[in-house]
Amino acid sequence: MTDTPAAKSSNASNQMWGGRFAAGPDAIMEAINASIGFDKRMAAQDIAGSRAHAAMLGATGILEPSDVEAIREGLLTVLSEINEGAFQFSTALEDIHMNVEARLKEIIGEPAGRLHTGRSRNDQVATDFKLWVRDQLDASESGLIALMRALLGQAEAGADWVMPGFTHLQTAQPVTWGHHMMAYVEMFGRDLGRVRDARARMNTSPLGAAALAGTSFPIDRHMTAKALGFDAPAANSLDAVSDRDFALEFLGVASICAMHLSRFAEELVIWSSAQFRFVTLSDRFSTGSSIMPQKKNPDAAELIRAKVGRIFGANTALMMVMKGLPLTYSKDMQEDKEQVFDAADNLMLALAAMTGMVSDMTANRDSLAAAAGSGFSTATDLADWLVRVLGLPFRDAHHVTGILVALAESKGCDLPELSLDDMKSAHPDITAQVFDVLGVENSVNSRTSYGGTAPSQVRAQVDRWKEMIA
Amino acid sequence: MTDTPAAKSSNASNQMWGGRFAAGPDAIMEAINASIGFDKRMAAQDIAGSRAHAAMLGATGILEPSDVEAIREGLLTVLSEINEGAFQFSTALEDIHMNVEARLKEIIGEPAGRLHTGRSRNDQVATDFKLWVRDQLDASESGLIALMRALLGQAEAGADWVMPGFTHLQTAQPVTWGHHMMAYVEMFGRDLGRVRDARARMNTSPLGAAALAGTSFPIDRHMTAKALGFDAPAANSLDAVSDRDFALEFLGVASICAMHLSRFAEELVIWSSAQFRFVTLSDRFSTGSSIMPQKKNPDAAELIRAKVGRIFGANTALMMVMKGLPLTYSKDMQEDKEQVFDAADNLMLALAAMTGMVSDMTANRDSLAAAAGSGFSTATDLADWLVRVLGLPFRDAHHVTGILVALAESKGCDLPELSLDDMKSAHPDITAQVFDVLGVENSVNSRTSYGGTAPSQVRAQVDRWKEMIA
Amino acid sequence: MTDTPAAKSSNASNQMWGGRFAAGPDAIMEAINASIGFDKRMAAQDIAGSRAHAAMLGATGILEPSDVEAIREGLLTVLSEINEGAFQFSTALEDIHMNVEARLKEIIGEPAGRLHTGRSRNDQVATDFKLWVRDQLDASESGLIALMRALLGQAEAGADWVMPGFTHLQTAQPVTWGHHMMAYVEMFGRDLGRVRDARARMNTSPLGAAALAGTSFPIDRHMTAKALGFDAPAANSLDAVSDRDFALEFLGVASICAMHLSRFAEELVIWSSAQFRFVTLSDRFSTGSSIMPQKKNPDAAELIRAKVGRIFGANTALMMVMKGLPLTYSKDMQEDKEQVFDAADNLMLALAAMTGMVSDMTANRDSLAAAAGSGFSTATDLADWLVRVLGLPFRDAHHVTGILVALAESKGCDLPELSLDDMKSAHPDITAQVFDVLGVENSVNSRTSYGGTAPSQVRAQVDRWKEMIA
Amino acid sequence: MTDTPAAKSSNASNQMWGGRFAAGPDAIMEAINASIGFDKRMAAQDIAGSRAHAAMLGATGILEPSDVEAIREGLLTVLSEINEGAFQFSTALEDIHMNVEARLKEIIGEPAGRLHTGRSRNDQVATDFKLWVRDQLDASESGLIALMRALLGQAEAGADWVMPGFTHLQTAQPVTWGHHMMAYVEMFGRDLGRVRDARARMNTSPLGAAALAGTSFPIDRHMTAKALGFDAPAANSLDAVSDRDFALEFLGVASICAMHLSRFAEELVIWSSAQFRFVTLSDRFSTGSSIMPQKKNPDAAELIRAKVGRIFGANTALMMVMKGLPLTYSKDMQEDKEQVFDAADNLMLALAAMTGMVSDMTANRDSLAAAAGSGFSTATDLADWLVRVLGLPFRDAHHVTGILVALAESKGCDLPELSLDDMKSAHPDITAQVFDVLGVENSVNSRTSYGGTAPSQVRAQVDRWKEMIA
Repeated sequence: MTDTPAAKSSNASNQMWGGRFAAGPDAIMEAINASIGFDKRMAAQDIAGSRAHAAMLGATGILEPSDVEAIREGLLTVLSEINEGAFQFSTALEDIHMNVEARLKEIIGEPAGRLHTGRSRNDQVATDFKLWVRDQLDASESGLIALMRALLGQAEAGADWVMPGFTHLQTAQPVTWGHHMMAYVEMFGRDLGRVRDARARMNTSPLGAAALAGTSFPIDRHMTAKALGFDAPAANSLDAVSDRDFALEFLGVASICAMHLSRFAEELVIWSSAQFRFVTLSDRFSTGSSIMPQKKNPDAAELIRAKVGRIFGANTALMMVMKGLPLTYSKDMQEDKEQVFDAADNLMLALAAMTGMVSDMTANRDSLAAAAGSGFSTATDLADWLVRVLGLPFRDAHHVTGILVALAESKGCDLPELSLDDMKSAHPDITAQVFDVLGVENSVNSRTSYGGTAPSQVRAQVDRWKEMIA
Repeated sequence: MTDTPAAKSSNASNQMWGGRFAAGPDAIMEAINASIGFDKRMAAQDIAGSRAHAAMLGATGILEPSDVEAIREGLLTVLSEINEGAFQFSTALEDIHMNVEARLKEIIGEPAGRLHTGRSRNDQVATDFKLWVRDQLDASESGLIALMRALLGQAEAGADWVMPGFTHLQTAQPVTWGHHMMAYVEMFGRDLGRVRDARARMNTSPLGAAALAGTSFPIDRHMTAKALGFDAPAANSLDAVSDRDFALEFLGVASICAMHLSRFAEELVIWSSAQFRFVTLSDRFSTGSSIMPQKKNPDAAELIRAKVGRIFGANTALMMVMKGLPLTYSKDMQEDKEQVFDAADNLMLALAAMTGMVSDMTANRDSLAAAAGSGFSTATDLADWLVRVLGLPFRDAHHVTGILVALAESKGCDLPELSLDDMKSAHPDITAQVFDVLGVENSVNSRTSYGGTAPSQVRAQVDRWKEMIA
Repeated sequence: MTDTPAAKSSNASNQMWGGRFAAGPDAIMEAINASIGFDKRMAAQDIAGSRAHAAMLGATGILEPSDVEAIREGLLTVLSEINEGAFQFSTALEDIHMNVEARLKEIIGEPAGRLHTGRSRNDQVATDFKLWVRDQLDASESGLIALMRALLGQAEAGADWVMPGFTHLQTAQPVTWGHHMMAYVEMFGRDLGRVRDARARMNTSPLGAAALAGTSFPIDRHMTAKALGFDAPAANSLDAVSDRDFALEFLGVASICAMHLSRFAEELVIWSSAQFRFVTLSDRFSTGSSIMPQKKNPDAAELIRAKVGRIFGANTALMMVMKGLPLTYSKDMQEDKEQVFDAADNLMLALAAMTGMVSDMTANRDSLAAAAGSGFSTATDLADWLVRVLGLPFRDAHHVTGILVALAESKGCDLPELSLDDMKSAHPDITAQVFDVLGVENSVNSRTSYGGTAPSQVRAQVDRWKEMIA
Repeated sequence: MTDTPAAKSSNASNQMWGGRFAAGPDAIMEAINASIGFDKRMAAQDIAGSRAHAAMLGATGILEPSDVEAIREGLLTVLSEINEGAFQFSTALEDIHMNVEARLKEIIGEPAGRLHTGRSRNDQVATDFKLWVRDQLDASESGLIALMRALLGQAEAGADWVMPGFTHLQTAQPVTWGHHMMAYVEMFGRDLGRVRDARARMNTSPLGAAALAGTSFPIDRHMTAKALGFDAPAANSLDAVSDRDFALEFLGVASICAMHLSRFAEELVIWSSAQFRFVTLSDRFSTGSSIMPQKKNPDAAELIRAKVGRIFGANTALMMVMKGLPLTYSKDMQEDKEQVFDAADNLMLALAAMTGMVSDMTANRDSLAAAAGSGFSTATDLADWLVRVLGLPFRDAHHVTGILVALAESKGCDLPELSLDDMKSAHPDITAQVFDVLGVENSVNSRTSYGGTAPSQVRAQVDRWKEMIA
């Protein structure tokens, strides 16, 4: 064989090293230094910040009304150019701030330069990035609520469908489908709380912190804060330009949410195996095989399961970047955006895909019910009855139950199928009333303690949550 | 040399492998399975939970008053035995719950078994651990406030001491010592907010969720929740026994706080170098050299700097443990406690050490002032004056400033030492008024925008924070 | 209820904060600074290093023979005191090095001080820690080989037992039990390679690097290196005292190994569910229920699954600690040991537990075989036959196979149960020879490509590995 | 102000959530499922693999020569289309494999389908990705060697330039510039070893493992392995398609390397501060200020310092993705590529930028020398002399040295400036010979132990390394 693709691949790799950086140090510096490749996603936020700042400079008399109006018009033009895809981004201009500013100058000339009065790139980037993250927190809220609604729909439909409750992936006690769905509503409900707390905490405006020390211009930071929807200006200019807590808190909140998604996704993968058959996922969120038509791979669930790695990886990255940085701004902090952008995109995608899957999936009620009743899953109910009604101590109740389970196993039947005589052989005081608690339906109906699996409890929780996210 | 320590060490290691596990599978299983080695730290929480549960079982008539009283007395005896160090912990009894229960049975006999009515080990461990974490959140709050007070003390004393403000570890503009201290007050203030939010969110009681499905006993979960200081019972029993969000949220909050500590610690290490000499750390938080008496190693600062790794490592560990776990309880979750215990211990220690260091440290005002004035640090002030007073566009102001900095550099002097004629040579409209903004003191006094570095602003922020954490 | 355990708990927590550190700054500094609480685990390594150093000081004439002999005897005494538990460790003496040295001085007096000629605590701690980690690499090697032997035992016994091969946890094609076991042998075999590479790379001696710059005493570092089993002295003294690559590489190797363990553990958990029933784990590595005797929780498997979190958490912690540390030694690096100790202990425990579980577990051959044949798992074999024998293009072969699978599904039978006429209805050229490739046994026997699932291939790989780890 | 950018931003975010996924479930599934957006980077590897596979199918007689030739020509055409940018990638075709295959079919028709004989997408993606990672390991090797050469250049030039050696960022002893540079050569040398070990270990071919079980076609996996530069075929087909160790090991190796880069970058940032002034970075790797011409921000160093976060974040992500995945292929594993691509790009960029910075930077010899001599940095040399020449025990030597340092401090001079009488006042046996070891030059010249800081030792190490990477 004269053909040597491997050698070529290896040559390619050596050339690659040389080739990538053949243009020399300047090319390397541009490659490592420029951020326009990713921070152009903050264009809308950048322009919103500049508009607010310009309006304030006018209101405080720092700029002439004509300059302010020119800036305002110019920024709207730039924004529409970007929205229409007509804007030419330049790597030589490094970042989104310089790109917008340079274009503004082309459009309106001289007054563009005055826009920087009382601010600097340090507070500008902090402001833009905060606005971007705040938008993601808002989108996370919407996404979580959509997912919770889908889960509430499943819970309401199946408030009384029985299924096995697992510990250690072993059947422990029967529960209801609705109860299981509501467990996730609780988790995503806590995520919602974390999203809202993070949004409230981060909602202070860095704008006007300037390079790091504040400014001697008589700016009104409360005015720009208000215009941008912030609750207040950030109270320390050094902190304002070097704080990235808001990004880290978003990543932490997103990581826990993604962990919840991974648990549910794992269940969906297991539940859709041939051995479990608890659910059927829709074709839209699965892939098939051209020769095995019954095969359906839960691709979306697997991809969702993986997202916690990606999102927590971003959290790790930014935490490590921030570790040990002296105040105030260091260029290290430029590594913040790509991590947050990627995490946010993937969180939204995972929430949307899970919402779609939950809405579309079908619970296989027969499989669930059959599994719920297997494995003497109501043995605990029997033991509880012995305690509650006959007043046996727990240890004795467990002993009697063990005897009866062994008896049923030897007869190849389940507990409710034992006769009253069988029952009495283990303990003479047992009465026919015991059959009221055996059987899967009886079991779940009996667990009416607050937050328990009884359908009545499940429906009460569905109602409570519907109201809370109305 | 007949002496071969290496060979022996190697033999030892092979023996170690064999030796560690020579006792066979049972020893291995006990070693991997038992948790009493660490969960005994939750003894107080375990007994508090049992007392609340027993009282409720009495109040609802599920247990006889005499049993309840016996349990109460017995638990108090167990608690005092533990507090006095008289309790014999047993690995064979696996965990703290079994250890306490077995001892209770020895003391009070039969009624001990009735304590388990309407609960299980799954909700018991969740309750104990939540109570433990809640205590840590309370301790974190105390620790953060103590540190903030130490910082406020430094800020108040040095509200008008000048020092360099850095970006990229390069002098950018003069700032005040108080302003720099207050930047950390902002950071720890956000940590405080996160601690309080986490505490409020986690404060629901798992007790009574039982194994996973709730119970058929007529228990009153609101009553036990209230007795333990919880705001409400957890609303879904499946979630209650498989939720570890509260631990993850604590670790996330602790990680960000430790990151802040690492930034300050880095500054203290750099500031106490011979080249900077910005601060002198007290002997108590440094170590010396027997032959170089002037040498003082900032050991405590370095150890604090490292803690973010340890605490975020714990966060990583638990996040990875929880990834993809199906509901409800799996034994994987037993890995939660050691991570949280270690992170909490180290966070408290780091907060205490930083508080001590901040209280003890001495700012070297002369070094700070000398560094603040070097490097033409008020060039920005000059440029701002040209804009504000002469109305120059920014670009022109920067150009003029550059000329004057170059002139000063060539003369080997600083900007305020140039003559008015020097000034006019760069731009004829400059007046003597310009000297009012040059010089470090003038510079910091002029930056009176909200959150700026002017001493008046710093003092206002000190007052605001004193009131907030009063 | 007059009983308020919660309030007490809360009081306790506030007292705890105060109480923990009530002894003041000195207690805080001792708590954060001392390492003897954990580094005493390196006592044997510390003494081995000192013995080698003393012998070299004698051989090079730097110390008198009588001093060397006194040191040697004294160190052996200290070692035996430690081994017998008679040694009194002191926190005031901070670390293991000072503890040993102080005791040596008590025993032999004056000569003890001469032991420090040409070394310092910085190279001493690096040497001790390297020796400790090297022991762990050796123990890892032993542990991996033991596990691989257990897997080879399973593979040999079940080289021809059929089971489903999964992708996406969906049955794809039949494979053999032995083949599946051997997949893990490959993984642990790569771990073994990484362990050996790490050991070879780290095996240079820091001893004699002194504080950081080397020494002016005419020491022979090659001699001490050799005595301690190192291949050579470390070639740069600055690097020697500030390098922790060996610890990080161990943690990286351990993390990948633990990831492999987590995958196998996950399979064991799923396989021992009531729905799969592929394996029965021994009672020794499971826990049961007093009332559900058939229930067996795979506790050991779950705990093993969790270890990757703990070990990778340690990796994260140390990587973050080392990030951005200037040369040479900084006290941050004292955080290295606890992470490595904990990770090593847990890796060894997980390897031992997995080895025990694998040795003890029973494959449920009937369940495996039944599952292997379900889901038209040999449809691919049929398609391959159509391509190979009839020369159909792949697309057509898939189409014909799809028709036949649909036909079988409609008849409620599997592919081998279709008649030849059924076959011909889909493609007229099909002959009775097709039945030779249908059926699970035929399928696995046919896959004889190198590394394929055919029993002959599996046995060849078993033999290859047996030889490699003989 | 009627202008409300904030409200718009908020509206935008809500619309964003809706808007992103307005196209419904199919759009969501395509967005989460398709990989062509990133895996097109493996086009060259994909085609190399297919060419090797086709040649083997011909050599073994499985395919007709004419088909093989058609496939070969077709693949070359596809490759040139991709290289020329003329290829139309399609998201509907999901991934690079399907995109190439579909285009091949357009070009050559029928025979394209036969290319899949004896392989599947699972082994194809594993093969492509391995080839891609192998290229990165080769590129890492080149990059590391380039950086080591730059460091060797600095070390050779400054083998005898004195500078302070630090512990805890406090001056400890004088060392040489060359010695410090060589410490990094050691670190990057270990990285090089890890890169080579990883390459050797991963160099087995998954091709022909097929979907997971091997194949019944008489393929020759050794032949394709050889053609692609692999050492052998992977020995277990289940493992071959589910193994991502090679990616994790690359990320682990890259993380440690990036940690080394972060340490050096931290030093460069500190060294280029106004307080240290140890180095001057070139303008090409710094950014300046328009008004403070002397200010030079070490942007490249800061960005390099941050890369360890990003790369270890990728390691965390993939480790978490792989945790607990049952065999064999799961879609979760599709998350592997973006992490590795990003980490590889950033590692190469960081190596290139550091190489450029090191080549360009200027050591400020005067500042280094002045700092080296300050702080009584040769006190250790004095103490060593007292031990070595006068035979004092260490403790006494330290005591005498302490007295002399205190004396020098009180006189405001350094140790070499004390008179012999001063010396004798502390210990009468001191002779004029002591002055031979005092002073920075004497100190570094005396430390000739192997690996020590003496210029002769440094030069020997430079020579050793030059030979090793020749």
